[in-house]
Amino acid sequence: MKAHVWVMPKPTVLDPQGQTIQRALSSLGHAKVQGVRQGKFFVLELNGLSRAEAQSEVERIAKDVLTNPVIEEFRFEVLD
Amino acid sequence: MKAHVWVMPKPTVLDPQGQTIQRALSSLGHAKVQGVRQGKFFVLELNGLSRAEAQSEVERIAKDVLTNPVIEEFRFEVLD
Repeated sequence: MKAHVWVMPKPTVLDPQGQTIQRALSSLGHAKVQGVRQGKFFVLELNGLSRAEAQSEVERIAKDVLTNPVIEEFRFEVLD
Repeated sequence: MKAHVWVMPKPTVLDPQGQTIQRALSSLGHAKVQGVRQGKFFVLELNGLSRAEAQSEVERIAKDVLTNPVIEEFRFEVLD
């Protein structure tokens, strides 16, 4: 069973990496890009769990390990 | 208009960050997680482009700027 987790800077938090990329794109001629935000994407491979167990396990992992709750937020999905 | 870009290590490429996270999860009691791969996720904000133009612009940006083609692969979607 696979799960996907997205971890993004909170909307209220500055994203200096994203801003740097946006400026780089602008200087490379991609001026139509008005904003960039960069986050992390994780693919987890899980074995021996029911779908419901996987849901709660992935939520716990995303919340406790993959996300810094001060500056980041997450979302996730469990696939078959 | 928004676009999402995922950049992942190629399946044939080792992902030391992902492996480190997998071992950390295992030592934290999440032993059901058999594998982790970490990638990057970008949210782009585009203005003044048609949907078709945005598609080709985002593909060019993902290919030329956001992805290292030696070790990474990308996929993207353009949203309304």
